[in-house]
Amino acid sequence: MVALNLVNRPNKRRQAPDQVSELTTNRLSIYLRCLHELDANGVQTISSQALAEQFQLNAAQIRKDLAYFGEFGVRGVGYYVKELRRHLRQILGLDRKLRVAIVGAGNLGLALADYPGFRQEGFEIAALFDAAREKIGQHSRGGVPIHDIKELKRIARRERLDISVIAVPAPHAQLVVDQVVAAGIKGILNFSPGALHVPEDVKLKSVDLTVSLESLSFYLAQGEIDG
Amino acid sequence: MVALNLVNRPNKRRQAPDQVSELTTNRLSIYLRCLHELDANGVQTISSQALAEQFQLNAAQIRKDLAYFGEFGVRGVGYYVKELRRHLRQILGLDRKLRVAIVGAGNLGLALADYPGFRQEGFEIAALFDAAREKIGQHSRGGVPIHDIKELKRIARRERLDISVIAVPAPHAQLVVDQVVAAGIKGILNFSPGALHVPEDVKLKSVDLTVSLESLSFYLAQGEIDG
Repeated sequence: MVALNLVNRPNKRRQAPDQVSELTTNRLSIYLRCLHELDANGVQTISSQALAEQFQLNAAQIRKDLAYFGEFGVRGVGYYVKELRRHLRQILGLDRKLRVAIVGAGNLGLALADYPGFRQEGFEIAALFDAAREKIGQHSRGGVPIHDIKELKRIARRERLDISVIAVPAPHAQLVVDQVVAAGIKGILNFSPGALHVPEDVKLKSVDLTVSLESLSFYLAQGEIDG
Repeated sequence: MVALNLVNRPNKRRQAPDQVSELTTNRLSIYLRCLHELDANGVQTISSQALAEQFQLNAAQIRKDLAYFGEFGVRGVGYYVKELRRHLRQILGLDRKLRVAIVGAGNLGLALADYPGFRQEGFEIAALFDAAREKIGQHSRGGVPIHDIKELKRIARRERLDISVIAVPAPHAQLVVDQVVAAGIKGILNFSPGALHVPEDVKLKSVDLTVSLESLSFYLAQGEIDG
């Protein structure tokens, strides 16, 4: 497999990261999840067509997305499942442990701290932070310690935190984001509604759970009209 | 404004719902959120260009997305904020109350039951369900009652539930989905990892929180390589 590694190695520089849309990276994540499932089922190679059919994806889109990063397919064979999975993990930066802190130890923060998908992909939930005295010193069900938000800077350095998840009520979100930025954390995943501001060297991604519910509402409304 | 209403009314039949991608409906939700903010700030009209600039969107994309559903822009004026908001709410099926049940009263289910964004857009979180005896009869912090999952069918009918949110551990998810389908609920928002199966007349949307974290990981990895 050495030759294959040389031929198929990902080319991270082929495209500047700003030109790769979040929709593309989201799809890479989904492909990775599919490859996990194929590998668990003992599948060794798969064509883009078969991959698309099995997981209700678009074969042309798969080929186009992967072509951004290198030549992974082998003519007449398709993709080697384990190989492609390794490459996708590398492209997504998952070939190293990323250390995550969650700010806000309410229901959402505690749910995220123990969310199985995070651990599975190599994220390490290292710490929870909260301001409520009665929570500090406690742990999530999965054993993540809850620290005082005042300790954020010190613990971010000690624990080498890469990413902070924001799970606090909207009125506190910007203040918390400012503290996270001041602590030197460069990646933020935000669950609070409303616009937040970060410096240019910090990557902020917001998850709005309402959008998902509204998309469902759209399809239900259409069904009633047309059906 | 009567004339405007006649000219600009949404045309839900212009495109079959299956041809409108989830990415489009997701963007409509985001536009709606922007219009709320503009309206709250007293803005009465806005061009697609200004809307795009203010919220870091794409003006051509906005025009294209809206054109699927009708003629909302007025030459030389742009969009009337309140009008467009009303139309978007109608297109997304938010002009009626949608009644939501959450199955799973763990941290995630409880967090979702009290998630402020859901209520804001007119979703009514009517019930939580769980199988754990000690949770049944309790309430979320926001006052949503927790029922026995065995009561799902009866309560779904009584409460006229439209949507069910699945917030149970992955090994139980398919069983719960089957119960939701048997209770006659046609819209499912799933937070459990793994593939789930539903009949054709049920719309299932899955939210994978890991995808968001991985997208962030991608940008952090690229930053380290290029920077």
